[in-house]
Parts: sequence; structure tokens; C-alpha cells
Amino acid sequence: MEYYSRQIGRLIEELSGLPGIGSKSAQRLAFHILHMPLEHVEKLSASIMEARKNVKYCQNCYTLTDEELCPICRNPSRNRKMIMVVEDTRDLAAYEKTQKYEGVYHVLHGAISPMLGIGPNDIRLKELMQRLQEEVEEVIIATNSSLEGETTAMYISKLIKPTGIKVSRIASGVPVGGDLEYIDEMTLLRALEGRVEL
Amino acid sequence: MEYYSRQIGRLIEELSGLPGIGSKSAQRLAFHILHMPLEHVEKLSASIMEARKNVKYCQNCYTLTDEELCPICRNPSRNRKMIMVVEDTRDLAAYEKTQKYEGVYHVLHGAISPMLGIGPNDIRLKELMQRLQEEVEEVIIATNSSLEGETTAMYISKLIKPTGIKVSRIASGVPVGGDLEYIDEMTLLRALEGRVEL
Repeated sequence: MEYYSRQIGRLIEELSGLPGIGSKSAQRLAFHILHMPLEHVEKLSASIMEARKNVKYCQNCYTLTDEELCPICRNPSRNRKMIMVVEDTRDLAAYEKTQKYEGVYHVLHGAISPMLGIGPNDIRLKELMQRLQEEVEEVIIATNSSLEGETTAMYISKLIKPTGIKVSRIASGVPVGGDLEYIDEMTLLRALEGRVEL
Repeated sequence: MEYYSRQIGRLIEELSGLPGIGSKSAQRLAFHILHMPLEHVEKLSASIMEARKNVKYCQNCYTLTDEELCPICRNPSRNRKMIMVVEDTRDLAAYEKTQKYEGVYHVLHGAISPMLGIGPNDIRLKELMQRLQEEVEEVIIATNSSLEGETTAMYISKLIKPTGIKVSRIASGVPVGGDLEYIDEMTLLRALEGRVEL
């Protein structure tokens, strides 16, 4: 990139290292940043550093946060007897957007994957089991509907069942508004297996 | 976004203010950054600030650069008698990638647009005319093939013609590898008008 001066070239290079940002988008972003008011760029740059420097795990649910406890675990109106287990913080955010779930979460930070050499000790499973020492009524397993997510769900349910705590799994099936024609066979089979009487 | 802690929420917000980055991509980027090694994040954040703080216009061709003269204007092997006029620095980069153009550039930073109230004095046109005081043999107008780009090309050619300097316009036509079926009518007409004898 000798046609860009050194610092502009480096900015484009750094940006194109981010996921989902190709070289064209990196150029577009870089020139957008170069044209932004200096104080906006200062804010952007500071947000990046601050968030990264202060990020830690919530002491209770292990989501990413910048305080000891995340906003959900600090909220006294959440039902602590219901724990939804998710693979990562973004999955938690996805369920929060529904505004219907009133329990708390547990973030595993991954899923069991023999293929990738990720075992039960590589995710926050021990921490989940510790939380079950307190009064918990139900654990809802909301890992992804992938091979790894399903393996993890099975593993966790086997681990929890002996404790007598209720374990459930979110339903698999046809997405709302989904056109059957465009849905993969595995999902269609799951939807059939999981059919409910009307 | 109360489900994200304050700093993470702010990072996502800042990122989603960038062009082409929706809320999903902003979340993905933010969590990628939160998982990056601290020193990489420091580099990213510093690149953004440095590039923005030091950005200026090349004293000769007005491209964005962080030095007095851009790498192209500093290069003694470029032909200074041939000036390609482009709308912005990214267009310059696009031509540089061909590795075939050996002249220099002039970056207008925009195009004449009566619709948007952008006139000849709002782009670096005066600066182009000043450069023509030196020994210049040809000005190649490579503004975009849009209404504004064409208007600007016409305007510049009328301005330069009295000086006796050769003025040319890059060809319009069917893109290489383009399937005629999918090309708009204006482009097809241009390709017809610009046909060359074989």
C-alpha cells in the first residue's frame, strides 16, 4: 500500500484485521475516520481502550462486564432461581432483547467440541455447578443448535439431573415467519419431532 | 442496551456509528476487540488517533497524507507532466493498484453538484489550475461516471482547453468480464458511442 502514506496505510491494515472487514471496507472506514471531527475520533479510540482494559467476567454469571457484577446480576427484580445457560455474552443479549425472560444467566464462553479439543473443563461449567449449591429451581440450556451446542446441552443435563434441579432445553424448530421451502432438513425434522398437540 | 455494562455498551454504540456497520456487526466487532490481546488493542486505538491527528493534504496533489508530500509526489520516477484528476484519495488508490499509471494525481475532494450546492470553488480546482503553470503535457480526468463526475469533467475540460494543454477523459463502457444482460442502459449506450474500430 505504498500509495497511502505510512499512518493511513497502517490504519487501513489494522482495520482490515477485524472480523468481517475486507480491504474495501477497511479503506472506507479509514477515510471516514480521517474525516471525522477530532473529538469524535478521540471518543472512539478511548472507548476501544477503556472497554478492553476494564473488561472482566461477572463474578456470578461470567458474562463480560466492566464491573464486579453485570447489570443483570445486580438487578434485584431478576429471578435468581432460574438460570439460562448460554455460550457467550451475545447470546445473552439476544435473549434480553425479547424482554420476556426474567431469570438470570450463566455464560459458558464456548461449547464442548472434541473436534477442536475443547472439553468440559475449558468452559465455565464448574462455575455453573457451584451456582447450583444455592437455591435454583430450573436450568434452561440455551446453547446453540449446532453439534457442539447439542453435545454441551446433553453433557450439562446429565450432570445436573442427579441434583434434582429441573433442566430444560430451548425448543428447536421452524423460525417464526420462516418459509418451509428454504429451511434445512435437520430443522424440519426437529420441528416434526417437537410437534405439539393443538 | 442495559444488558451490556456501561463501557461495553458505549463501545458497541461508537462502532455502530461507523459507515456500513449495523448493530449486529458492531456487537461482533466489540466482542472481538474485547477478546484481543491488550497490546493489539493499544495498536489499533493508537493507529486511529495517530492517523486522524496527523492527516493533512499533500502540498502538491491534495491527497490525504501524513507528511508534507504524499509518497507519489515524492517519488522521482513519476511523470509530473501527466496529471490524473480524481474525486478522492480512494480513487487514486484504485488506479495505483493497476500499477500501470506512471503520472501523478490531483485530488479534488468532491465533484461539482448543483443539487448539493457544491460549486467549482468547493473542490480543489483552483489548486489544479495553479499546478498547470508548471510544465504539464496532459490532464486525464478520472472523475466518476456519475452526473456529478461528468459535470465536473466537462467544467474542467472547458477551463483547461484555452491553455493548450491536452485534456482527456477515461473511457466509459462495459466493464471487463461484465455480462451485457446485467449492465444498465446508460452504460450500454456509452459503450456503443465510444466504440473503436478493430
